[in-house]
This record gives sequence, structure tokens and C-alpha cells, in this order.
Amino acid sequence: MKKIVLVPDSFKGSMNSREVCAVMERQIRLYLPGVVFVSTPVADGGEGTVDSFLTAVGGERIHLRVQGPYGREIEGFYGIIDQGKTAVIEMAAAAGLPLAGKELRVERASTYGVGQLIRDAAGRGVKKIIVGLGGSCTNDFGAGAAAACGIRFLRRDGTDFIPTGATLGEVDRIDRSGLLPHLQEIEIAAICDIENPLYGSDGAAYVFAPQKGADAAMVKFLDKQLRAIDFVTRRDLGLDVSALPGAGAAGGMGGGMAAFFGAKLQKGIDVVLETVNFSEKLEHADLVFTGEGRIDSQSLCGKVVSGVARYTKERGIPLIAVVGSAEDGIDVAAYDLGVTAVFSINHELADIETIKLRGRENLAAAMSNILRLIKVVGTSAI
Amino acid sequence: MKKIVLVPDSFKGSMNSREVCAVMERQIRLYLPGVVFVSTPVADGGEGTVDSFLTAVGGERIHLRVQGPYGREIEGFYGIIDQGKTAVIEMAAAAGLPLAGKELRVERASTYGVGQLIRDAAGRGVKKIIVGLGGSCTNDFGAGAAAACGIRFLRRDGTDFIPTGATLGEVDRIDRSGLLPHLQEIEIAAICDIENPLYGSDGAAYVFAPQKGADAAMVKFLDKQLRAIDFVTRRDLGLDVSALPGAGAAGGMGGGMAAFFGAKLQKGIDVVLETVNFSEKLEHADLVFTGEGRIDSQSLCGKVVSGVARYTKERGIPLIAVVGSAEDGIDVAAYDLGVTAVFSINHELADIETIKLRGRENLAAAMSNILRLIKVVGTSAI
Repeated sequence: MKKIVLVPDSFKGSMNSREVCAVMERQIRLYLPGVVFVSTPVADGGEGTVDSFLTAVGGERIHLRVQGPYGREIEGFYGIIDQGKTAVIEMAAAAGLPLAGKELRVERASTYGVGQLIRDAAGRGVKKIIVGLGGSCTNDFGAGAAAACGIRFLRRDGTDFIPTGATLGEVDRIDRSGLLPHLQEIEIAAICDIENPLYGSDGAAYVFAPQKGADAAMVKFLDKQLRAIDFVTRRDLGLDVSALPGAGAAGGMGGGMAAFFGAKLQKGIDVVLETVNFSEKLEHADLVFTGEGRIDSQSLCGKVVSGVARYTKERGIPLIAVVGSAEDGIDVAAYDLGVTAVFSINHELADIETIKLRGRENLAAAMSNILRLIKVVGTSAI
Repeated sequence: MKKIVLVPDSFKGSMNSREVCAVMERQIRLYLPGVVFVSTPVADGGEGTVDSFLTAVGGERIHLRVQGPYGREIEGFYGIIDQGKTAVIEMAAAAGLPLAGKELRVERASTYGVGQLIRDAAGRGVKKIIVGLGGSCTNDFGAGAAAACGIRFLRRDGTDFIPTGATLGEVDRIDRSGLLPHLQEIEIAAICDIENPLYGSDGAAYVFAPQKGADAAMVKFLDKQLRAIDFVTRRDLGLDVSALPGAGAAGGMGGGMAAFFGAKLQKGIDVVLETVNFSEKLEHADLVFTGEGRIDSQSLCGKVVSGVARYTKERGIPLIAVVGSAEDGIDVAAYDLGVTAVFSINHELADIETIKLRGRENLAAAMSNILRLIKVVGTSAI
């Protein structure tokens, strides 16, 4: 029996990964009606992670009120999957850039609400918590989240406080003894798709704070704060997380997750594919379709297409990437990873906004062309 | 043995059809080294027709000095193919818009030089002359060309002259008796890819004269001149060519070719494919690649892709169109014609000029993706 596996990322600004799957499915039904297909809409740890897991493996969406990045209460959420054994949190749900609105003051923004989501999930008896990093408006090293879970940050005068990006340098001592006991038994995977270290020219402040509203002086100041908290972390917790690939993710929360929660930093797509049991879905598959809004040298480094390619290459299964746009010359790098072919869905010269609006139609047309080609090649002497 | 036929049009402004073939060939050699391929670069009757025939079937390029559209001598050319039995002329070689430069005075431009090319070819003893219409800067009903071949246009006072668009109305009588005798024995095929009638709102003047420099008043005047010469043609030659599809091509030269030379008006691609013996090339072919710079509802109506599709559909051979851009929603219409799949080579958002510059690279990348897909599908269980 012929089997096709669909495992696309979202096409940002145009379709989420479920919608991408739906369009692909419709065309497969039309052109290859006898084929079995398995749909695994995925995301890579940014916004949409929770929904992506819920769609792929089923589960429950929990809503609760938590503190937003500037202290106002907001409606947060996370997912419970795997028969209640795993929680999936996206940090953007409580500290995401869209929650900041026009109020971009990265130095004062806190991940405290993310910690509240973690605490709530831990209270439900899960064995594992997956925290998707990315899309944050913060630069607090995840200290807010840690504080919400019982870790104390003390000033020189012995008073404790919840540090933000601007006040990490005031931390004189970190006391990890108050960490919620059941959190210590839980496996925590932090997923992030960048490899930046905590500080320095490639670090959280220099690379990402400008898009969160920091000017040059503020960037320099924030970097200094990260260096200061790293010093205290090394001394008090005996951990040097500053050079971990991904420590600089989400305003340094990558580093903080490792330091405060003992989290393992993993590529989003690897955790996603592991959690959805992707190996199993690939059994007896003849062909895999993946895709994303844009394929470029960055997306080939740890995003959906490359994560999927690692699985398919190992098993010798052809992998077709259907993308919005592709960087000039990216094909060869994609082939090296195990991608069989890359097809762009854009067939008409148009500006990016028009193209995004036509995502569904263009994807449907591209799929129909690919499937019609597969059909004639598969049934002819070619 | 596996056989692939390549029969692309040019990608205007980016690659001529020979260059398109060369890129396609290189990728086929790379990915399907065992495959035999036949290259038939084609064009559809506009600029490039002569070279296209010469490339496809071999032959000789004849150069001679003829009169340009405004009377100055220019270097004209035509092709001799088919062991000297057929001449291929593109009217643009002696009356093309580029020859006018900035001197756009459509009412004074003449096709006389085209007639000189016809006369020269006839003098070589050919049995057939193919005249590619299109890309002209004239609106003279082909009267200039007719005059160069011995047809006389007489004023009321009995004097003869060579009419242009502005003076067709001065023709009182047409005398066909002086037409070169050997021209009467020669089959003449005029190729054109539009179906416009001679005059009226869809006619040569109203539709095409504006791009040749005519303002609204001039368009009206030129249309009136075409009506006048049509009246005389009907009376003196007993022929009504005004409503022939294509009579309005090349400033009315479509109509004039039929009236003065007894030419048959045909779709360019049909004549091209017939002349290059395309049926024979298709024997035992497993797959055909065609392509053009842009596929849209116009190009599906008588251009290369549709002409090729007519052949492949009849024979049940899969046909892949590789194009620069494709009109939104064109796919279904293309499938109806017999096209298996349409792939655009543009994978990156960029302006048209950048895209044209990257034509070769983008075509090579698209071909490699298509061929890699064909290869895995052809050799796997899919």
C-alpha cells in the first residue's frame, strides 16, 4: 500500500501548519485517491507550539490567568498531552512580543507568567514539561519564571526581588532551595532554534534586544546585566550556562532554563518529532512532504525541514519540501541534508502581502502539479 | 530506452530557446545520465523565428541589404532550410519595432524591406516561404512588401506609388499582374499568433498602433485607411480578407499576405512544429519538457505550450511546462490542454529585472528539483 506522510511547518503570515496539511490532503485525495496519508502538522517552538502538539497527538488546552510581561494579568494557556504525562508551554503565551503591544520596554519585561504556567503544569503531576522558547519581549534570563517557581534572588541587603533585564545586576545571591519540590522530579525540555550564547556580540542582548525596543546604550546595559547574573549563577549554582548553544534564546531564558530548572536545550523540531512519535508514522512511508514559508540557510539549520530530513534520510524515504520562497542557491544545501526536491508555491510575480493572501491557492496549485507529475511518472515507463 | 524531448520557447528578456535547451540538457545529463534527449528550441513567429528554425533543423542564414521601415538601408536576413526548399523570413528583420528606434511614425513606416527579403528568397528557387509576422512598427497592410514583389498600387491619376499606413486611402486601383511569376508557384505561410481582424475596434490600428506611436486621432485615421484599402482589395482582387483571424497582425500585413500573396495564416507554433518534423521527434518519447517566460491565458491560446500540448495529448505523452511566471489559476486550463504539470522557476521574491538576470540559475534549480523528483518516483515504489 502506498503511504504519504505530511509534516509541514506553518507558512508564517499565511497558513498555520494544520491549514497547510488540509490543503495538501485535499490535493492528494484528488490526484492519488488510493494513497494513505498521515498528517503531522508541526511547529518549531515559536508561537503555535502548543496547538501544534495538540493537533499532532491530541490533548487538552488549559487556560489560566497569569502575569503578563509588564505585570498586568493576562489569559495564559498551555497544553497537556500524552495522557496527562506531558505539558507543553510556549513562553510567548505569557511573555510574547505581541503581548507587549507598543509598550516595548524590554528591560522591565518579565517571564514571571511563564513560571506560573510551569508551576501550574507541575501541580498536575506531569512527568515532563516542554517549554517552547522564542518570540519573547523579555531579557530577564528567565529569572521571572524561576522566581515564580520558588527560586529566590537576593540583593546585597538580603531582601529578595524578581529581577528583570534591568535589575539582573542587583542580584547578589541566588537561592535555589525554594524550588518547588515536584519540579525537581520533572524532566524539562526547553526548545529553541537558535544557537546564540548568553552574552557578547552574538548574545541575547546584542542580537535580539533591538527588535524588542532597546537602543544601542540599552543593549550594552542589558548585556552587562546578563554577564553579572552569569557570574552569580556560576558561583552560587556551580553552573556555567553562558556558552550553551541557545543560552541566549528568549532573552537569555535558554540559559536560565538550564541553570534554574536543569532543562536540556533542544532543537524544537527534534522534540516535536520525538513527542509525536514520528519514527512510527514513517513506517512503510513511500514519500514525505514537508514545507515552510521560507527555506534559507537559517531554516536549514534546525528548523522543520532539516529535522524531518534527518529522519527521512536515515530511512531512504524521498522528501519533498514545498515552500513559499527559497533562498537563491539553497537547493544544493537542502539536497545534502536529504531533501529530494524543493518547490516554491509562488508562480506569479507579486509583492509579499499579495502572495501571503494567496497562500492556500498557490499551495493547492503547487501540490496538484507535483502530484500530477508523480502520478504520470509512477504509472508510466519513465 | 528512455527518451525526453525538450521543446521550449524563449524566456523573453532572459534566455533564448537554445539557451533554455542548453540548461535543461545539462541538468538531464546530471540527473538522468542514461536518458536520450532531443532538443527542439522553438519560437512562435516573433523575433527569433529564423534562428529558431535554423537551430531546430539546420540551414543557412542569408544576409542582404534591404530598405528599413523608414527607407534607410539596413542589414536584413532570412533563413534557408530544408535543403534549400524552404525560406524562413521574420518580418521584424526589416520592419521591426526595434528598427524604428525612437522614430515611431507608424503612418509612414513601410514593409518594403520585407518584400525584398521575399523576392530574394523566391529567386533562390524555394518551394515554400514562411513569413513570421509580429513585432512590426508598420500599419501598411503589407502593401510595401507587395510593391517590392511587383504588385502595383495606382492613384486615381494612374501614377503608381508605395502606400504606407497614411496613404492606403489614396490607392484607387491594385494591379496584381506584375507579381513576380515564380512567387505564384511558391507556397507561402504567414505565421501569426493573434486573431485580430483587419480593422475596427479589435483591428490592427485600434489594438496595436498605440504601441507603435499613434495617438487617438492617428489610430482613427489609420483604421480608416485600412477600411479604404480593404474596399479596393475586394473590388480589384475579389478577395475579402478583412475578417480573417490574424488579418490585423503586423499592421494589417496578415490581411495583405493573404490578399497579395495568397498566403495561409497559421499559428506560428503549428508551422514551426510541422517544419521541424515534431511528430517524428516525439516517437518513443516518454516525457516532454516545454516552457516559456510566462504562461497565461493568452499564451495558452496558440503559443508554444499549447501547440506542443496538442501533439503530446494526442499521443498520451506527459508534458511538463517549466515557466518563468504563471498567471494565477492557469493550471486547470493548462491541464485541459494536455499539460501534465506547470512549474515556475521563480523561487525567490524579487523584482522582474532581478528575476530575469537569474533566469539560467533558476531554470537549472527548477529542472534539478523536477528531475530529482522524477528519479526517485521512477525508481521507487511510489
